[in-house]
Amino acid sequence: MQVEVLPNAGSPLLPYLEDKLVIVIDVLRATSTMVTALANGCQSIIPVLSAEDAIERRLTLPGSLLGGERHALPIEGFDLGNSPFDYVPEKVGGKRVIITTTNGTRAIRDASAAPKIWMASFINMQSVVLAALRQFENSDKLQGIVVFCAGTEERFDLPDTLCAGMLVDGLGANVTLNDLGEAARILYRSSENYLVDKIRGSAHGRKLISLGFERDVVYCSTPNVLPIIPIYQEGEIVWMTED
Amino acid sequence: MQVEVLPNAGSPLLPYLEDKLVIVIDVLRATSTMVTALANGCQSIIPVLSAEDAIERRLTLPGSLLGGERHALPIEGFDLGNSPFDYVPEKVGGKRVIITTTNGTRAIRDASAAPKIWMASFINMQSVVLAALRQFENSDKLQGIVVFCAGTEERFDLPDTLCAGMLVDGLGANVTLNDLGEAARILYRSSENYLVDKIRGSAHGRKLISLGFERDVVYCSTPNVLPIIPIYQEGEIVWMTED
Repeated sequence: MQVEVLPNAGSPLLPYLEDKLVIVIDVLRATSTMVTALANGCQSIIPVLSAEDAIERRLTLPGSLLGGERHALPIEGFDLGNSPFDYVPEKVGGKRVIITTTNGTRAIRDASAAPKIWMASFINMQSVVLAALRQFENSDKLQGIVVFCAGTEERFDLPDTLCAGMLVDGLGANVTLNDLGEAARILYRSSENYLVDKIRGSAHGRKLISLGFERDVVYCSTPNVLPIIPIYQEGEIVWMTED
Repeated sequence: MQVEVLPNAGSPLLPYLEDKLVIVIDVLRATSTMVTALANGCQSIIPVLSAEDAIERRLTLPGSLLGGERHALPIEGFDLGNSPFDYVPEKVGGKRVIITTTNGTRAIRDASAAPKIWMASFINMQSVVLAALRQFENSDKLQGIVVFCAGTEERFDLPDTLCAGMLVDGLGANVTLNDLGEAARILYRSSENYLVDKIRGSAHGRKLISLGFERDVVYCSTPNVLPIIPIYQEGEIVWMTED
């Protein structure tokens, strides 16, 4: 299986995606939050690029909530930030959330040519690995996996790359990797036993801790907590039911 | 000491370079070839962006040689390719070489705001590390190091990142790193004992081997062969004499 890992949203050179499974990773915190929201009963998540888009979109979807962040902080007038702990059942149960995040939303947009787009994070990685292996057992339509690390403001992001490495490692020995995929696997294998420390020490981890979000950093660094795979289809992110 | 590693030429976001030592790394093969050329008596190397620029520049510098590559192959009508084995004393001794390479030349151009620009590769790394440590002992004008991995066609390049990791590792424990710097250090420490294998297996390594340049790949992966640091000043790359 061919697996290509891309370093950040806004990569100038995108591979051919029409026959690929794209897996978007934004550990801190968009994809971790999406997994958590759906686990807590959120009906669907609608990713949009800007706060203005989110407000406009709500006009057509009354009763939905607004969520997201800019520079890691909640947006004024929005119902929810980007912390997974905001997305509790009492708030998001049965509701649609229109969400805008700096990097995660851009990564989803960049992936839009792909027939399948999934969201992964440490917290749902075991389910993502198993589902990906099943996809390739059962289908000869898909020609490989492209992993989009959302990255932080167009820079290489260690948490996302470690998470991509956990995915690559889980897919087994029978993979062909690009250079960043190989690097991600080496990084994950070297750091597997102290993931939380590495992620705390990363640029984005330090920033979130300085803003009071240490609990988020620890939660988002914990593997295999929730068996849920958010998938993007027809403009919405919903819980995958095995197809 | 603050050390920031950037992933490839053409990074959209450049840090403030006016008080930085920039170290350009293009293991396969531009900076390895520059080190070798200067060791073999080449008077200076003039990096330019295109083959056309090179030909035009020679009009003003009669007697100089043209060197470089496009897509890893020599350019028609040029005297030298991008293989370090082209730059033998019989050819380059006492001569200027006007060189154009896809990624290395762009990285040097992107670094042009920095007061000091050095070229590093595995083959001269020990000398680069020692000279960098001396710079920061003796000067309070420089505020850190920015490492430009030239990369391969705007993608993450494992050989360059491993080489950046060797540099970071050599600078000792007293460094503050960005995420890619930390990743590079982990990658180097995990791969230190089988660098040649990792570089052979990289995308660029495989491509060069398929084109018949296996000898180049092995040579460029060998640490600490030559005690020479090419520096860029006033448009030319010359051998550093300690200042």
